[in-house]
Amino acid sequence: MQRYKCTVEYDGRPYHGWQYQDEVISVQQVFETALEKLAGTFVRVYVSGRTDAGVHALGQVVHFDLEKTYPADVVMNAVNHYLKPDPVAIVDVELVDQEFHARFASKKRYYMYRIINRRPPLTFEAGLAWGVYKPLDIPAMNEAAQYLLGTHDFTTFRATECQAKSPVKTLERLEVVAAEGQEIRIYAESRSFLHHQVRNMVGTLVLVGKGNWKPVDVKTALEACDRRSGGPTAPADGLYFVRVDY
Amino acid sequence: MQRYKCTVEYDGRPYHGWQYQDEVISVQQVFETALEKLAGTFVRVYVSGRTDAGVHALGQVVHFDLEKTYPADVVMNAVNHYLKPDPVAIVDVELVDQEFHARFASKKRYYMYRIINRRPPLTFEAGLAWGVYKPLDIPAMNEAAQYLLGTHDFTTFRATECQAKSPVKTLERLEVVAAEGQEIRIYAESRSFLHHQVRNMVGTLVLVGKGNWKPVDVKTALEACDRRSGGPTAPADGLYFVRVDY
Repeated sequence: MQRYKCTVEYDGRPYHGWQYQDEVISVQQVFETALEKLAGTFVRVYVSGRTDAGVHALGQVVHFDLEKTYPADVVMNAVNHYLKPDPVAIVDVELVDQEFHARFASKKRYYMYRIINRRPPLTFEAGLAWGVYKPLDIPAMNEAAQYLLGTHDFTTFRATECQAKSPVKTLERLEVVAAEGQEIRIYAESRSFLHHQVRNMVGTLVLVGKGNWKPVDVKTALEACDRRSGGPTAPADGLYFVRVDY
Repeated sequence: MQRYKCTVEYDGRPYHGWQYQDEVISVQQVFETALEKLAGTFVRVYVSGRTDAGVHALGQVVHFDLEKTYPADVVMNAVNHYLKPDPVAIVDVELVDQEFHARFASKKRYYMYRIINRRPPLTFEAGLAWGVYKPLDIPAMNEAAQYLLGTHDFTTFRATECQAKSPVKTLERLEVVAAEGQEIRIYAESRSFLHHQVRNMVGTLVLVGKGNWKPVDVKTALEACDRRSGGPTAPADGLYFVRVDY
């Protein structure tokens, strides 16, 4: 058996998230169907970070085992061929040993959240960013983000259906950056995240950016350890799984 | 009567170009239908540059006259409301006098052409850029572009169905720039362009970028004044109408 590590890009708009579900289309199903055409048999694919419906990936990582050993390029080109016309593509393949595991070996995960801060509705970016009309105060958002850095009980920013054993996580980066044009990007880095953690933090930072909350209100919300103290969940549209370190 | 100048953004993928045609959907039809809902009557819209099927706009300019004088914001928000869910949006409105004409007063037009230079098929950018697999030599493309700058007979780069009276145009800028990631952008500026001129120049520069042509071959092609001497027409997908100067 040969294990393969693949870096995968996908536009999440058409899919009900990464994970296979009966009766709706998932990225996992699309990927496993394409891989089966290369392998000649069903092959289970393991992912670093399961993404929710409508969430995108620039550098998702998956692994799987095949009976045969193919050159990396052959796997990339064949699976990409079978993935067409779905907006899912392998952008890198490595042959790895059986120690590698896409999920359990992940040391750090990188997310990006895209906001387009303008009055007109989104055109090119519809479903690919959150359109926020009211001008956002980026320095205030960064001041608020400081309170979330480090190791905390993130219950306030955790989906009620989250299945993680502990709500304690260590947030290594949470930074709001003015990007090209009217775009604002929020970068988040951690070994792992709770369910909806990034979207809940973004929804809360946007309250600060609009001036509805003061930066210090985010500290109060965090310390309450209660989801009802946090801001709303930002839409899936703007969230991108960017990279994993192993 | 009050004349309005609007800057318009559109994703060209769903449309058979700007211009109204029976039986297929055009940006003009979508825009005039939305405007009619504000005006209560049909209003003709005049455009700076008619774009072909699948071509996009970041800063197309149109003008039209309304009986009533509205504040600029009211026109922008009302028409954008009626344009939903089409990927067409007004991003700026100015009230102008009757001297202004979107097409005839245009002093300079700016186009951008986007190439994603990579092996995997495009996902997010499908229909929004030209996916070119073979690595492109950007310095060679820029060397070739120099031969096209200035005033020339551009017959070699003119669609056979082009209706312009003269094939002589003055090209003020044609520059190939490495952008973020694997993206290459080609910027073209001129008072006006022949039909398919940008796409035909891009198709020819890509032959140079792939090494199939030497830069000086572009000079020979230009001087032949024969469409059959030029390279292929690049796909509409990568072309953006960016801006107009008045």
